[in-house]
Amino acid sequence: MMRKVAIVGTGHTDFVFQSPKTEIEMFCEAATEAMAEASVTPRDIQALYCGNVFGDFSEGQGMIQSYIANDLGCHHVPATRFEGACASATLAIRDAFMWVASGFYDIVLVGGCENATAMGTPLATRTFAMGTDSKYEFPAGLTFPGFFALLANLYSVKYNVPMERLREQMSLVSVQSHFYGTKNPHAQFKHKEVTVEQVSNGFMVASPLRLLDCCPFSDGAAVLVLASEDAAKKLTDKPVYITGVGQASSPRMSAQAPYLPRIRARELSVKQAYDMAGVGPEDIDLCELHDCFSIASLIAAENLGFAENGKAGELWEKGETKIGGKIPINISGGLKSKGHPIGATGASQACEVTRQLRGDMVSQGRQVEGARTGLVDTLGGDGIISNLVLQVL
Amino acid sequence: MMRKVAIVGTGHTDFVFQSPKTEIEMFCEAATEAMAEASVTPRDIQALYCGNVFGDFSEGQGMIQSYIANDLGCHHVPATRFEGACASATLAIRDAFMWVASGFYDIVLVGGCENATAMGTPLATRTFAMGTDSKYEFPAGLTFPGFFALLANLYSVKYNVPMERLREQMSLVSVQSHFYGTKNPHAQFKHKEVTVEQVSNGFMVASPLRLLDCCPFSDGAAVLVLASEDAAKKLTDKPVYITGVGQASSPRMSAQAPYLPRIRARELSVKQAYDMAGVGPEDIDLCELHDCFSIASLIAAENLGFAENGKAGELWEKGETKIGGKIPINISGGLKSKGHPIGATGASQACEVTRQLRGDMVSQGRQVEGARTGLVDTLGGDGIISNLVLQVL
Repeated sequence: MMRKVAIVGTGHTDFVFQSPKTEIEMFCEAATEAMAEASVTPRDIQALYCGNVFGDFSEGQGMIQSYIANDLGCHHVPATRFEGACASATLAIRDAFMWVASGFYDIVLVGGCENATAMGTPLATRTFAMGTDSKYEFPAGLTFPGFFALLANLYSVKYNVPMERLREQMSLVSVQSHFYGTKNPHAQFKHKEVTVEQVSNGFMVASPLRLLDCCPFSDGAAVLVLASEDAAKKLTDKPVYITGVGQASSPRMSAQAPYLPRIRARELSVKQAYDMAGVGPEDIDLCELHDCFSIASLIAAENLGFAENGKAGELWEKGETKIGGKIPINISGGLKSKGHPIGATGASQACEVTRQLRGDMVSQGRQVEGARTGLVDTLGGDGIISNLVLQVL
Repeated sequence: MMRKVAIVGTGHTDFVFQSPKTEIEMFCEAATEAMAEASVTPRDIQALYCGNVFGDFSEGQGMIQSYIANDLGCHHVPATRFEGACASATLAIRDAFMWVASGFYDIVLVGGCENATAMGTPLATRTFAMGTDSKYEFPAGLTFPGFFALLANLYSVKYNVPMERLREQMSLVSVQSHFYGTKNPHAQFKHKEVTVEQVSNGFMVASPLRLLDCCPFSDGAAVLVLASEDAAKKLTDKPVYITGVGQASSPRMSAQAPYLPRIRARELSVKQAYDMAGVGPEDIDLCELHDCFSIASLIAAENLGFAENGKAGELWEKGETKIGGKIPINISGGLKSKGHPIGATGASQACEVTRQLRGDMVSQGRQVEGARTGLVDTLGGDGIISNLVLQVL
């Protein structure tokens, strides 16, 4: 019998290019905010879960979680690092959820941090391609812009969406993300709005994807305090419950061919999360999904059940993904505008959904009114997916 | 209410220098053996947990767990990588234990793999120093031979063990490990026995530690099948139960000064494991402990409760750590002779203890007769510890 698990505190650093802080410092900054919000002290924390991908490359620091725990003052607590490429922090949250749900711990810290920009974008792109198959596919030239460019071309052909229309749909995705990003004080591109023309005519990265179809690399951290239901009720009058979790994995890209551009692992993962929560896509009031590239948003929205295959672009065309629409998506600015500090991204998404469900976003002018059920969707590499359903009960 | 969790299958590759196999291939080899032993198929596996430290450095492969799961035929299962330096696989086992104990999964795969020797020992030593503090201590010159050399000197002074006697005790540790290693067909040094004179007069690495005080780097994998009690009873008549788990973390070395050479995190971790299992050090019939350096064996034996501080060397002097002694230690050959494929080591230790508790080692001439309770001890970097108590019930 699982216990209910709530998010009772959230912390989120600014997402920036070339932070002067170390990953340990960034995590501690977000964790300190999260603990203050939850009215807990480091001595209340029983375990720490950390998503991080690049630390050994960018800072020469392994097992970062141990230093984080002890620097925070959570002396000697069990501290575990999770790596699942961009989905690292979501894997950590799902795992931390289980340690609380099972009754083993009452209050834990979970989040992610990444210093992804120190090495510069070209080297980061090469390094991050470690999230593809290194033996066969990377040597053939596959990096992630190429991966999603292939999916965009396949999407156009397989779903019969002419490239001209798909081009416009993808641009609308980026335009919306940049619009909401200007309302998010933590967003890397908080000062930058873009137009359809700018996106559609930008520098070609990997045809048909242009510069503004691609999310940036970023530095930052996001952290949550999780608590059992009993502990949560003592700590906050606004608990946000994790009512569903899911996770699945894919083989290397070439072996996914029968499904692509669908990410089959996402369909399986989100079903786990929906089933556990007893909800379906029609119950989701807002979603933070993994928009590493504009085409990825369309694919994700379909895999998650918000549109039929080939039809997600119409959601953006009709404004259904905006506040007030059928399914508000990436009201944080998403990876595209908020930024993408790899190992922190899933925790950032969960932080954003939590704050929306608590009604904290009014002052930022981007509150999804009355939202009670939110979905987190994170994609790692070429096929680790994790989903979380968060709810106000 | 936690369910009982059993180890129902074990797999272990040879531990070697410069394996021609990839980490994915090594894990799959061990997993295939473990699944065969457990009479389960890839379709029975509900989730996969993988310890791995170096994969992105040695092979340019991140999120290795996803490819492993799908190459094995465990299509789309949740697959998670754990990094806690040398303790990575033990963290994975403790975590997999929770997912089964909680009732969420019935049958899972957990293990570790590492290709640690491709880059050669000097670069591996530098790379592995990412398991120390990278901002202050590594730039001051701290690598792990240095770390344990400092501990050896401190041990001699603080516990009043003259260096000459400590030198002899450390040599006895290595001699015993190499002796048992010759009986382990998977051991990297299965053909190499050493004498006290050879150890004591070997090439000086970091005073007082000489070459044969130091474990090698290795390539290899080890994997377990875990099952709930109900599932286990259908699969095997020799289940070995995980009755206690523990984990703790330390700050960077300089901040551990009040405790050193004790590793405080180990004392806390093993207490968790003992308490959960309802046993104490006097109940342990055999132990696989983290002998990355000979001095580390003495410190570990004390932290685990087998001897008072400063007295562990006497266990080796009196032969109490051999088969038939009070507390048989590292009858596998330990990290010293069996080898140390970083991310696989904890799974290898658990595999060894499981096979001893099942009575499988008679044919190898190294069975600890009548052993019913065993202990696993793994140290990651400068202070992540995880312990497991394994029992025949």
